[in-house]
Amino acid sequence: MKFTSSLFKAKAPIDKYSLYVPKTGVFPKKFEVGSIATGVKKNGNLDLGIIVNRNTSRKSTSSAVFTTNRFKAAPVLKSKEVLESNNYEGVNAIVVNSGCANSMTGEVGMRDAEKMCDLVNNKLHLDNQTLIMSTGVIGQKLQMEKIANGIDKIKFGSGFEDWLNMAKSICTTDTFPKLISSQFKLQNGKVYTLTGISKGAGMICPNMATLLGYLVTDLPISSRGIKKILSFAGERSFNCISVDGDMSTNDTICMIANGAVETDVVDVDSPDFEDVCKNVTSFAQQLAQLVVRDGEGATKFVTVRVTKSKTFEDAKIIAETISNSSLVKTALYGEDANWGRILCAVGYSKTENYDSLDENKLNVKFVATDGSTPSELPLLINGVPNLDVDEARASEILALNDLEIVVELNTGEEECNFWTCDLTHEYVTINGDYRS
Amino acid sequence: MKFTSSLFKAKAPIDKYSLYVPKTGVFPKKFEVGSIATGVKKNGNLDLGIIVNRNTSRKSTSSAVFTTNRFKAAPVLKSKEVLESNNYEGVNAIVVNSGCANSMTGEVGMRDAEKMCDLVNNKLHLDNQTLIMSTGVIGQKLQMEKIANGIDKIKFGSGFEDWLNMAKSICTTDTFPKLISSQFKLQNGKVYTLTGISKGAGMICPNMATLLGYLVTDLPISSRGIKKILSFAGERSFNCISVDGDMSTNDTICMIANGAVETDVVDVDSPDFEDVCKNVTSFAQQLAQLVVRDGEGATKFVTVRVTKSKTFEDAKIIAETISNSSLVKTALYGEDANWGRILCAVGYSKTENYDSLDENKLNVKFVATDGSTPSELPLLINGVPNLDVDEARASEILALNDLEIVVELNTGEEECNFWTCDLTHEYVTINGDYRS
Repeated sequence: MKFTSSLFKAKAPIDKYSLYVPKTGVFPKKFEVGSIATGVKKNGNLDLGIIVNRNTSRKSTSSAVFTTNRFKAAPVLKSKEVLESNNYEGVNAIVVNSGCANSMTGEVGMRDAEKMCDLVNNKLHLDNQTLIMSTGVIGQKLQMEKIANGIDKIKFGSGFEDWLNMAKSICTTDTFPKLISSQFKLQNGKVYTLTGISKGAGMICPNMATLLGYLVTDLPISSRGIKKILSFAGERSFNCISVDGDMSTNDTICMIANGAVETDVVDVDSPDFEDVCKNVTSFAQQLAQLVVRDGEGATKFVTVRVTKSKTFEDAKIIAETISNSSLVKTALYGEDANWGRILCAVGYSKTENYDSLDENKLNVKFVATDGSTPSELPLLINGVPNLDVDEARASEILALNDLEIVVELNTGEEECNFWTCDLTHEYVTINGDYRS
Repeated sequence: MKFTSSLFKAKAPIDKYSLYVPKTGVFPKKFEVGSIATGVKKNGNLDLGIIVNRNTSRKSTSSAVFTTNRFKAAPVLKSKEVLESNNYEGVNAIVVNSGCANSMTGEVGMRDAEKMCDLVNNKLHLDNQTLIMSTGVIGQKLQMEKIANGIDKIKFGSGFEDWLNMAKSICTTDTFPKLISSQFKLQNGKVYTLTGISKGAGMICPNMATLLGYLVTDLPISSRGIKKILSFAGERSFNCISVDGDMSTNDTICMIANGAVETDVVDVDSPDFEDVCKNVTSFAQQLAQLVVRDGEGATKFVTVRVTKSKTFEDAKIIAETISNSSLVKTALYGEDANWGRILCAVGYSKTENYDSLDENKLNVKFVATDGSTPSELPLLINGVPNLDVDEARASEILALNDLEIVVELNTGEEECNFWTCDLTHEYVTINGDYRS
């Protein structure tokens, strides 16, 4: 059946493009990017991008986090192999195509993924140093002729437009490209640059959500350092977002450090290590949040904060359960102060270690993030439901586009922030509609 | 925001009432039921029901399965206590109210639940032999005056209309009452009757889904027998349905056997035991399926069959993951033959024991249940995606109101059937809308 989604728009849509897409940017030294429309996307949009490290003065280091789905798409298997065979050093390019995920494509898919990497290696005179990512329709073969042709023609640059186009080239049904950049100083006084690109849980029927992201920096980091940093950051960013709770066969987050800023290599025992880890984590969180901002049909951006937990893992399970609850997400959409559903989700969250959850110490509240007061609205206090919830104020807070749900466990010092969006008619329309 | 749900109706709604509500029925001996409108439901509908066992010739036996949500509503805690203090024998009444779940109501809620049971015990001259169930709004106190008044006035009967009204009195936003009855013979040639009533995952903002069900029979069963039967049957029926994956604070399924048919008590080692267990299980499955049929906004009834598994638990986890996937459920609504989403869900299902899932042995197919052919449409064969899926036939099967998704693990002999519905605009409307 076909749906006229405009029927379901309850309020004027937010202009996410102008809100979240930068107008300028500064990018890490010695990285270049190129993108092109190969024709795989029927609408003629950019659908192939390559990022290349031009720094030859020292070996790059890299790390990646892949989907845990047991059906891993060919590009995931190929990228794993490239990283391992290079021992996480000297990986100098990433090629990404959109429009076809090369997933559930068996042997043919593996050969095509290898072919794509070889084409890029040849073009850039690299020796098996190219990672690959694909997103788009699953169960369909790559149109290798178009892709080979695109790789052949692609040109590289390092300007803002080049980076923005790179971000555009990996989009599927994303409503805006996701590109952020930031600079940070270390104790040595030197300035380093970190750039990230991601794409959201967008669909092109008949495929599934795919989350792709990569971070590149000109800071020199050891290979064991970058591994530790990315797994820490990923666990607290891309693994802490929910649009619909489904996990794809292609999800990949990777990071490359080319050390183009000629300073000492940051290793796990360097004085700067923790600082770098924090910087990368908050940067990865910003990048991951853009995916939720662009969640299919989303009208709200909700931070679920589970605090004062005995363990991070428990805090995360509770935050994730609330963030994935259809009842919580529809209530948020309806701006219904339906606090019972939040308590319910806390109640059925499967925390392995029950030490972190003591009903009698539990506080739950809505928090307004727009500066209005009272900013906190208690729903549960020391495990006792607040039967006198100020429903009017609750509705005010629920009417905000951005808000927080805070769950205080009061059993420890760990915390997890999870980011989710509402479940809307538009979501059902996008995902229920026939492939177009 | 308010939604006009009629906008989203893609096809003429199914007349579920005439399809699923019986016109006559035969009921177990020596049980009587009564129901009344106390005024708790603003619309004046029936909202209080009592079922009573009038058989005094032998002690009844009973068992119950309760929500595992850590926030258990007062009636759940009270019923647990009644069953335990009676050692699962001699429980002779169940009182059920709808319109208020008496959940998240703290001390007051416990006292009110006890008061309700006492009122019924006094009316029926019972000594702490009454179970209690409540469904409806959470975080609100019971209107005890109205309820006491209702209990006082309630009249009992054993005719079809009495039973149908009992089923009506526990409904919330259910679109039809759920009442079924069946008779079965044992080797002794005697006929026994089994009657079941349930209510669905209906919402009255601001509450959450509540699943209630009870089975009564005039077959004499030992207390350890009825415990084993209900937990086996419940695990394969009410625990195998998904509307939105949320679990309430009030979910309760209970069973009473009054032994009004004067034959030997069926115990776990009786020759008839397995037979009775099978009968009750398939009966409980029919009763549970009615809940999915009446799933909020549901337009489709989908059986997810995971077969040839090494363990039942693994089969169940995979079936449950598919049944709860928003992407699968929206694709079913859109009648989109989106097989990739099903494979994806199998891929991320968290099966503890991986022995049951071997990708290379996996078969996945759509199955038509209307007798049309080919009835089976393979999506995955021995782990290899069927890239030549007959999309036209797939769409035909997806267009059916009833269909099956079959996942063959080919690692053992266990199987689990799970029942789910589609995720529709109407679901979002019902659950996103303001409390009314």
